[in-house]
Amino acid sequence: MKKLTDLQAIISNEVKQLNFPAYPAELYEPIKYILSLGGKRMRPALLLMACDLFGGDVKKAISPALAIEVFHNFTLMHDDIMDNAPLRRGKTTVHERWNDNVGILSGDVMLIEGYKLMMRVDESLLRPILNIFNETAVGVCEGQQLDMEFETRNDVGIDEYITMIRLKTAVVLGGALKIGALIGGASTVDAALIHTFGEQLGIAFQLQDDILDVYGDPEKFGKQVGGDIISNKKTYLLLKAFELAKTSQKSELTKWLTKSDADPKQKVSGITELYNQLQIRQYAEEAMQTYADKAFAALDAINLPDAHKQYLRDFADGLMVREN
Amino acid sequence: MKKLTDLQAIISNEVKQLNFPAYPAELYEPIKYILSLGGKRMRPALLLMACDLFGGDVKKAISPALAIEVFHNFTLMHDDIMDNAPLRRGKTTVHERWNDNVGILSGDVMLIEGYKLMMRVDESLLRPILNIFNETAVGVCEGQQLDMEFETRNDVGIDEYITMIRLKTAVVLGGALKIGALIGGASTVDAALIHTFGEQLGIAFQLQDDILDVYGDPEKFGKQVGGDIISNKKTYLLLKAFELAKTSQKSELTKWLTKSDADPKQKVSGITELYNQLQIRQYAEEAMQTYADKAFAALDAINLPDAHKQYLRDFADGLMVREN
Repeated sequence: MKKLTDLQAIISNEVKQLNFPAYPAELYEPIKYILSLGGKRMRPALLLMACDLFGGDVKKAISPALAIEVFHNFTLMHDDIMDNAPLRRGKTTVHERWNDNVGILSGDVMLIEGYKLMMRVDESLLRPILNIFNETAVGVCEGQQLDMEFETRNDVGIDEYITMIRLKTAVVLGGALKIGALIGGASTVDAALIHTFGEQLGIAFQLQDDILDVYGDPEKFGKQVGGDIISNKKTYLLLKAFELAKTSQKSELTKWLTKSDADPKQKVSGITELYNQLQIRQYAEEAMQTYADKAFAALDAINLPDAHKQYLRDFADGLMVREN
Repeated sequence: MKKLTDLQAIISNEVKQLNFPAYPAELYEPIKYILSLGGKRMRPALLLMACDLFGGDVKKAISPALAIEVFHNFTLMHDDIMDNAPLRRGKTTVHERWNDNVGILSGDVMLIEGYKLMMRVDESLLRPILNIFNETAVGVCEGQQLDMEFETRNDVGIDEYITMIRLKTAVVLGGALKIGALIGGASTVDAALIHTFGEQLGIAFQLQDDILDVYGDPEKFGKQVGGDIISNKKTYLLLKAFELAKTSQKSELTKWLTKSDADPKQKVSGITELYNQLQIRQYAEEAMQTYADKAFAALDAINLPDAHKQYLRDFADGLMVREN
């Protein structure tokens, strides 16, 4: 079994070798630029990992893995326009460095390039793999749509929130693992199981992210603690708090959310205090555990040698380490 | 042989039956909206026509034809954002009716839906047809990029202009015909020939459009005569004029292009006068004829019954009728 870090290194190296036409320069330069910004290359590495675990030749999975990475960066390029984001991985975003039109059109070409790379599979796998890719790609767009809508909607429930994070974040993990598994020779049943594993783990991971935003150790958590609270982000925690709050607590929550001149520190401590009163952390951790359990149940059912399953379990545990 | 108008009617009807999910509404409503705006459905009808001419079952070509129409409307949705266009077929554009973000994301989903529809072909054709689709889609993006660049570039030559119109307009016609031909059972050679026919005819058609903008009969030409001149559009005529102009004529041309307060009528007559001096119309018509000849040469070489070739010849003649 190949180490995840080695698989990530393979991808990093292969991304550097990707060739795009030189002309028209303004169409292809932004693609080279965003791909050069790095990142953990986790999604394509997972694709290679699944192929490897099912006994496949990792070399045969490299183009589809690159397809997932190119696709992921297409979504980042377009999301950054939609979110009006100035920075991506600490560097200027494409639409800021060039302009929105360049970001739209280069992103479009990236999606097509993703299909071209994804098609480099054996004939018998072409249709099943493209079906997964289509479903994944549509899911990510639906997730982004919901995420944007949620900013202005006041009727978002927990179920819909879970749907959003599943689509926006988790289906790509499931899709990458499933495609890798099929290339590795997995049965349809096992491919479906590893998809579930990735998807449910992705949901658990996102819920953990929501929890860490409030309760994480500032030293270990990569982002500003309380960032979601300051920006009024509709996380699991906030939605659950609204669900459970009594009238007076609801007023208090609403007061913080609508107070445009609130001191950020006071807002974070005020809302955290409400979360504590309502035991939101426990609810969130239980929900996270529910999805992690579903992931592990799918994993248990996969027909793989124990050592390979343990490898996936260790990977999942590594992801779900609680930094608090 | 089925009449083109009948094939267009089939597509119009099938477009109405296209199903998209109801949720998230803001993602799928714009797709239904832009597809409901109508249009001649020429590209998908050409795909069906090619299938029919090679003796295929038109029913088998309907999904790929819809794919071409959905893809075409995806490019319109994104182009309208990039061109800041308020209207499309006389109706409010998607990004104006909703917003830019909705236009970007719904367009992205349309491209994926295009792939899903294009995949509804027999197994043996899946890869060849997707290869054509990929090449077509990349070409259209490259053409749009060049078209946008040309607005601000002052070094555009005739060759590069032909490349732009070939990519932006003509490759979709070639691609649609080639895909239809393959579904109809055409040989690889014949499929390549009908691609050339469509592509070269598309270039000729676009050159005709450039000519008609200046020399068309205002009664018959659908657009404002001189519209390209007023907007400083780098058409074949303008680029050829710069190529042939003597120093004094070049100054005169530049004067009109840079005079921001020019009276539109005077500008049109001033530049048309320069075109006349330089015999630009004749050059443009010769160029148009060159591409039409290439289209007809490819058509002659196709292995089809004479009546079927005549049908394509009549179709091409219908396209190339000179409204002046």
